[in-house]
Amino acid sequence: MVADDRISIHQVTLPPQCTTPQFVAALARHGLRCTSLWREKTREHGVAATAKLVADSGMRLSGYCFAGLVTSPEPGERAKALDDVRAALDEAAALGAPCLVFVAGGVDARDKDVRGARGRALDALGELVPHARAVGVKLALEPLHPMVCANRSVLSTVGLANDWCDALGADDAVGIAVDTYAVWWDPQLLESIARAGRRIISFHVSDWLADTQDLRLDRGMMGDGIIDLPALRHAVEEAGYDGYVEVEIFSQRNWWRREPDEVIATIKQRMRTSV
Amino acid sequence: MVADDRISIHQVTLPPQCTTPQFVAALARHGLRCTSLWREKTREHGVAATAKLVADSGMRLSGYCFAGLVTSPEPGERAKALDDVRAALDEAAALGAPCLVFVAGGVDARDKDVRGARGRALDALGELVPHARAVGVKLALEPLHPMVCANRSVLSTVGLANDWCDALGADDAVGIAVDTYAVWWDPQLLESIARAGRRIISFHVSDWLADTQDLRLDRGMMGDGIIDLPALRHAVEEAGYDGYVEVEIFSQRNWWRREPDEVIATIKQRMRTSV
Repeated sequence: MVADDRISIHQVTLPPQCTTPQFVAALARHGLRCTSLWREKTREHGVAATAKLVADSGMRLSGYCFAGLVTSPEPGERAKALDDVRAALDEAAALGAPCLVFVAGGVDARDKDVRGARGRALDALGELVPHARAVGVKLALEPLHPMVCANRSVLSTVGLANDWCDALGADDAVGIAVDTYAVWWDPQLLESIARAGRRIISFHVSDWLADTQDLRLDRGMMGDGIIDLPALRHAVEEAGYDGYVEVEIFSQRNWWRREPDEVIATIKQRMRTSV
Repeated sequence: MVADDRISIHQVTLPPQCTTPQFVAALARHGLRCTSLWREKTREHGVAATAKLVADSGMRLSGYCFAGLVTSPEPGERAKALDDVRAALDEAAALGAPCLVFVAGGVDARDKDVRGARGRALDALGELVPHARAVGVKLALEPLHPMVCANRSVLSTVGLANDWCDALGADDAVGIAVDTYAVWWDPQLLESIARAGRRIISFHVSDWLADTQDLRLDRGMMGDGIIDLPALRHAVEEAGYDGYVEVEIFSQRNWWRREPDEVIATIKQRMRTSV
């Protein structure tokens, strides 16, 4: 079971029509004190206004999500993408977030060699490290599920995230985000988590529904699917992680259609019984 | 480029309403001499009738697809599943297919530990080897995409298929089917293919569409997506594979809506330009 003071709820988990002030107020109403903010929503409300809202409410941030998409083989596009990540790092610093979730980017039809895209993502990270260090926000490399490898992220396993961390040699500025939904199926997951150790700076939970209907927006509430969440939580804790357990559920057909209060109450209950 | 005499077209690639006799006739009309038959369709037409049709038409089989789903933790269900695989091996032998595609089965909600499901699948394979050997049909272990790990197959990588082959020690009765659609994203793919070597007894092609809309039935025609198919074909050939290149496209929104002749003509053309 996860105690309330270790719960973080990612902003995307509540219905999209919920504004940032409404979202922060809903968390506070349920006695929760931590969140991870969604960049799109933050920009909608304004970075400075969101930073003030967070500070005034006494809310803590477990992360800021997301930036990246740096795999273009075209130099102009690549430079623009890197500038955007630097801007996101600045935003994360202004908000007081300890890390920025980094989503590598997909395969480019102009260069179908997925190893090429991986090489470009790693090169980009090397160029981004100095800025992350300067603003004091870590880049959290988040492996995404292989089903979004083509269009979202060529970083598909915790093992590969470890390889990238080894290559970068910048553990003060780069860490790993372990999202149970993205990595539960990996035959090498437990050894990769142990290898990651204290590089794990972010831990996300949701569940994989047996009848999943969408490649991105059909995540389940913890306990409603087939992921052995307690085992994965124990594995990251065994590796040294003692931070927040962040709930991140994109759910077009179910949770996004419910009232924020019902979603939050359900999360608090499931964190006790199913994580 | 793949010459016509190395092309095999899997029966599922043509529209579902196409009967087995119509399917075999369509291949023959285009000068193609090899196919992989779908078990459901074969039973619909009758195994003996299909065997006669195949023999009379001079068609060769690259495989028979599929059986498995042996991960239940309940002994009665498990025994029934194993008997069904033995029946499928018998059918494959009657048809003259060199191998039966083996799909492991998913995670069972009654035991969410995916390692448990993997252990049960491997145990089941050990029990099936004698029957495969007796009827002279190899079990082709096919890793499926991690997006169907929950409900179709806990065998998610070529690396894990290699581990299972090592554990079984039965290379005369068990091999590996490499399906480009299922494995292209794997950071360890090339080393796993090299390790598999002559264990690779089946090679499937289709393409991953950038805007994929379904977890199972939205595969693309070779050349329409982002998989580097020539590189993967070279990799399996480098490992020692010199068999058929089998086209397997489940495509509800596109190819299943077209005329069989158009689908086959397109495949022949794309095998020259995009594989």
